[in-house]
Amino acid sequence: MLGMEEALFVPTATMANLIAVMCHCQRRGAQLLLGRDAHLHVYEHGGAAQVAGIHSQALPDLPDGTFDLDQLELTIREAHGSRYHPRPELICLENTHSSAGGRALPLAYLQQVRGLADRYGLRVHMDGARLMNAAVAQDVEPARIARHCDSVSLCFSKGQPHRAAQVTLPVAPQGLGAPAGAVLAGRREFIAEAWRARKLLGGGMRQAGVLAAAARVGLEHAAATLRRDHDNARRFAEGIQELNSPLCSVNLMAVETNIVMVSVRGGWPSPAELCEHLQAVSEEELAETGQAVSVLLFPWSAHTVRAVWHRDVSARDTELAKNKLEFVARKCQEKLALGLHPTPPSAGGA
Amino acid sequence: MLGMEEALFVPTATMANLIAVMCHCQRRGAQLLLGRDAHLHVYEHGGAAQVAGIHSQALPDLPDGTFDLDQLELTIREAHGSRYHPRPELICLENTHSSAGGRALPLAYLQQVRGLADRYGLRVHMDGARLMNAAVAQDVEPARIARHCDSVSLCFSKGQPHRAAQVTLPVAPQGLGAPAGAVLAGRREFIAEAWRARKLLGGGMRQAGVLAAAARVGLEHAAATLRRDHDNARRFAEGIQELNSPLCSVNLMAVETNIVMVSVRGGWPSPAELCEHLQAVSEEELAETGQAVSVLLFPWSAHTVRAVWHRDVSARDTELAKNKLEFVARKCQEKLALGLHPTPPSAGGA
Amino acid sequence: MLGMEEALFVPTATMANLIAVMCHCQRRGAQLLLGRDAHLHVYEHGGAAQVAGIHSQALPDLPDGTFDLDQLELTIREAHGSRYHPRPELICLENTHSSAGGRALPLAYLQQVRGLADRYGLRVHMDGARLMNAAVAQDVEPARIARHCDSVSLCFSKGQPHRAAQVTLPVAPQGLGAPAGAVLAGRREFIAEAWRARKLLGGGMRQAGVLAAAARVGLEHAAATLRRDHDNARRFAEGIQELNSPLCSVNLMAVETNIVMVSVRGGWPSPAELCEHLQAVSEEELAETGQAVSVLLFPWSAHTVRAVWHRDVSARDTELAKNKLEFVARKCQEKLALGLHPTPPSAGGA
Amino acid sequence: MLGMEEALFVPTATMANLIAVMCHCQRRGAQLLLGRDAHLHVYEHGGAAQVAGIHSQALPDLPDGTFDLDQLELTIREAHGSRYHPRPELICLENTHSSAGGRALPLAYLQQVRGLADRYGLRVHMDGARLMNAAVAQDVEPARIARHCDSVSLCFSKGQPHRAAQVTLPVAPQGLGAPAGAVLAGRREFIAEAWRARKLLGGGMRQAGVLAAAARVGLEHAAATLRRDHDNARRFAEGIQELNSPLCSVNLMAVETNIVMVSVRGGWPSPAELCEHLQAVSEEELAETGQAVSVLLFPWSAHTVRAVWHRDVSARDTELAKNKLEFVARKCQEKLALGLHPTPPSAGGA
Repeated sequence: MLGMEEALFVPTATMANLIAVMCHCQRRGAQLLLGRDAHLHVYEHGGAAQVAGIHSQALPDLPDGTFDLDQLELTIREAHGSRYHPRPELICLENTHSSAGGRALPLAYLQQVRGLADRYGLRVHMDGARLMNAAVAQDVEPARIARHCDSVSLCFSKGQPHRAAQVTLPVAPQGLGAPAGAVLAGRREFIAEAWRARKLLGGGMRQAGVLAAAARVGLEHAAATLRRDHDNARRFAEGIQELNSPLCSVNLMAVETNIVMVSVRGGWPSPAELCEHLQAVSEEELAETGQAVSVLLFPWSAHTVRAVWHRDVSARDTELAKNKLEFVARKCQEKLALGLHPTPPSAGGA
Repeated sequence: MLGMEEALFVPTATMANLIAVMCHCQRRGAQLLLGRDAHLHVYEHGGAAQVAGIHSQALPDLPDGTFDLDQLELTIREAHGSRYHPRPELICLENTHSSAGGRALPLAYLQQVRGLADRYGLRVHMDGARLMNAAVAQDVEPARIARHCDSVSLCFSKGQPHRAAQVTLPVAPQGLGAPAGAVLAGRREFIAEAWRARKLLGGGMRQAGVLAAAARVGLEHAAATLRRDHDNARRFAEGIQELNSPLCSVNLMAVETNIVMVSVRGGWPSPAELCEHLQAVSEEELAETGQAVSVLLFPWSAHTVRAVWHRDVSARDTELAKNKLEFVARKCQEKLALGLHPTPPSAGGA
Repeated sequence: MLGMEEALFVPTATMANLIAVMCHCQRRGAQLLLGRDAHLHVYEHGGAAQVAGIHSQALPDLPDGTFDLDQLELTIREAHGSRYHPRPELICLENTHSSAGGRALPLAYLQQVRGLADRYGLRVHMDGARLMNAAVAQDVEPARIARHCDSVSLCFSKGQPHRAAQVTLPVAPQGLGAPAGAVLAGRREFIAEAWRARKLLGGGMRQAGVLAAAARVGLEHAAATLRRDHDNARRFAEGIQELNSPLCSVNLMAVETNIVMVSVRGGWPSPAELCEHLQAVSEEELAETGQAVSVLLFPWSAHTVRAVWHRDVSARDTELAKNKLEFVARKCQEKLALGLHPTPPSAGGA
Repeated sequence: MLGMEEALFVPTATMANLIAVMCHCQRRGAQLLLGRDAHLHVYEHGGAAQVAGIHSQALPDLPDGTFDLDQLELTIREAHGSRYHPRPELICLENTHSSAGGRALPLAYLQQVRGLADRYGLRVHMDGARLMNAAVAQDVEPARIARHCDSVSLCFSKGQPHRAAQVTLPVAPQGLGAPAGAVLAGRREFIAEAWRARKLLGGGMRQAGVLAAAARVGLEHAAATLRRDHDNARRFAEGIQELNSPLCSVNLMAVETNIVMVSVRGGWPSPAELCEHLQAVSEEELAETGQAVSVLLFPWSAHTVRAVWHRDVSARDTELAKNKLEFVARKCQEKLALGLHPTPPSAGGA
């Protein structure tokens, strides 16, 4: 499916990425180039350094999840062939890029990164935890994306309980998602090395077939499921745009897959306060809208709330969540108009 | 069950052990004392060094799976408080001890190791992949064993496909074993650290409940299942002893749990050749014994064949395997008497 | 002198910094906050990751060598207490800051960093390779600077042969500089740990007294020597400013110690070409200026040439170098006026 | 001199060995085979694991400092080509072997190790801290020894202040020894890698010429100096043998270079007590022998005192030390005969 020679089942995408770093960077003093906001750099406990002993050179991520290619080349060239610098050996891309709001990396960009890597003798690994989302969004085979990489990791489990959005509704239908597992794909010798690294890290489960089977089921229905997630995310985003509210907004251009970054810049309510309002249910809501829905979202940064769609959030859930946001936004503005909200720490700031 | 404050589900016992080493040895320059034949030292890809950066001081394992306590203390004392040596910080025990043939470590010995560790400020970790076997063999609660340790790992998956014994019979009943997973138990703060290490290594599966549930089922029936395994192993060992064959023998005293080490010292057949004979089926066998059974065993060392019992090997399987061995031993001796066997490389040696 | 409890002699400042990272970051999963252009991050072969297993979070360095303190705090807070992130444990400062052109970090800034570190339980290490330069520039005792830090490294050897400036003149008087060595200072227990790390890394030279003695001589004369270096650097910088040339310029405000960053932004000559002209000697130069001086400088970046002063560059050397630069600038402008220079790759660009 | 393509000056032999391990073991999961009593394994803070991440497989050292070659081969073969084991990649030898009492490894043995390494694709590194002693003892060029190795380290500094023997006499003439430094020699590409590792570890001193020069002086006079040390050591050992004392003895066959292991097996005095007697001076000694000499020796193990010769211990010092030992032995026996000594913990035991 990914057009790779071989693949290895591992417990998590974190292990897949760690193994990739270990096996692509065999020489001592290797250097890894990756995005400063990449999951691998921020959330994986510094495994590249702690386990693999690899120095990370973190580059700024552009809003669409790409690097400035000139800066990437400059960074490589500065160290390339110098015995005073660590050796650049691996570029890690994240696709779709989570912190950038689920942006799918353009195919032309991938080709350019590949060219640059070839020019300087580097490898390219793709943290493809959401690669299938990118494939669906770009309407291409996953292999078309993976062909620009030396290795790709893919995640089978559905959601990120922390900091992720869970639109929980009175009766939420629990679907069938793969419970755990990820895959790492690459060339034959690379996977042979990866097998050893998996054993070393303790990811070599003996009878992993039961997990792999669940993952397979998930993959088979991936296209349809993910397309529905993307549609739901877009509908939610469009709903926010239509609100035309000064409290929250969304950049529709950036909603390519299953993630919506909601901009919250009015000072009050803050992202955290907005999330509280969305979760709370009240008599008033029932009276006014005929529904009492608790929507569970999490603040992402000082000015952002992030919402993520997965197979257990239906079109109807999305509709209910959109309605709830509309209700909350309206109520907040009424309070603002009446001066009834608590004064924020620094007025207009947050 | 283990009498520990908290526990963590991890994909494999290898990861449980690696995490234990990492979390018990936080200071740089820590030294790990363990057995030279310990699984942790031999089969886990040197994770203590490679991932955790910990120097291992390997001690000789005695035939019953214990250390010479004087030597252990001497080794600790040499380095204790010296700034020219790494700092001894952790003792790892394996129980039951696999390379020693599944020997259960005596409770008095565990108490002595605990005392020694306390005297010098070391921690004790038990690689308890087969701890339940020890508890059953010693007829005590697992917690009675674990109380002497700061942490214990426990393995839920059943067998070791490599080098293990699989008594495959014409119609082998496949039982219900936990497909994967292990647990690491210890004090609250230790497990909090272990949680981070699991995340780092990529063992933090989000929806691991499905695996944990299977493991739980396995545990609930552990006592009865393992006792049956031990009985089968013992019956097989007794059968070999009754053969009274110059080709193969067994030390019944050492058969405490589910492992039987078969001594093969006649020169011919070698352990590997004996295994070949056990696996092959022939018209002759069917004619003489009324059965045609293929027994899959693996050579363990230059003079040993190892057989391991697990829930999928029944009492009847064991009986069939014993009969097959008897048949093979008889045939081999007939050939030897007739001088019909191939001359071994060095007669009587190998 | 540094106001620290104890100190350790080590072969190089690189080892001093590496030991500091190792000993301040004992817990697994520790995170180091440092500047993206810090020597420790760029030139020390990723030792923090490769040897110490520490994840670096690199922050942008401001032009005066400091961090944006809000961003520093935000970065710490994001990970502080989160079990999804590495643990921020150490802030590394570089003083004077080499890439920033030898800027001395303001004392008030150091105090603020100290306060921030205390608030979140972090340690502060200062890569004080040029700490004496900072003390001389700020006219304070070194201890006044070091008091804000948990540890300080200090370098005794004089120059950086690569990328450094060597104003070599026909008869260059070779002075007496400490041949090698650095010192790491900190609290008693920290230095006890550092002793072990030095032994581990192979920096524990048995009879290092001969080196330490040379270093001591260097230190005793440090104030006078460095003040002279700073004066020379300033005089050179003022000379460039007085040239008022469109080809090269200098920001006098930024010349605080012994480093001068010469801005070369005219497109032609490029930094590399300018250095070539400064090194070459010609009949024309002798005829016009009565001197034939070869000045050895190195390009620092795409738009900068860096010049560094040390004890072997006298006031007269500086005068000669300034004259040579004046001559070269004049000649280049003449060629530009006549259109006699080679067309640069992208006119006006570089 | 060593017949190697290139060499690198480093601060200590510990760093030379560490760099060798790092540069020979580039692949992850590499395994190092070395002696359990090797300096590298016991005294270098586990750098192979801690810094290089390399798993050590420690083999028992035979009394002459060699390995049992069958066991070495068996250990390699068990892991060779198995994906369940770390990969054996490097054999480390120590020559002369310190813990074995300065034994010079036989040339035929070195050739056999080389053959074995070639057969399985391993490299051989020699910790040649005392390689020159071996060359002098075997009366061959150092290159004859080094040719069997892929790399060799050599130590220039003279003695080990801890656990070493210092025959301090009333007026001890201080000679000229190299104050510090070691060298690592090997193939061109190996040394290029070693250059980077030296930089990483902080051993890249910029103006190391002054140390290298001192080392060179030491080397030039090595043959004569070391031969004298060996002669002195032998004379001291012969003196002990001639004593024919039940309290202490020596195995003359094992005295090949500058180390004498004195066996102390009478129960009383213990090695530590014997050293105390040798250090103490008394009126009685002056009266009886006409000298009052304090000999500083250190206990090596429960039954051994170790004495080491270096350039600052003259033939006359040796003579005085021998006399002192004779005096002490006589006095102790007199006390034993009179029953005047303190009863040892277990009579005749120790």
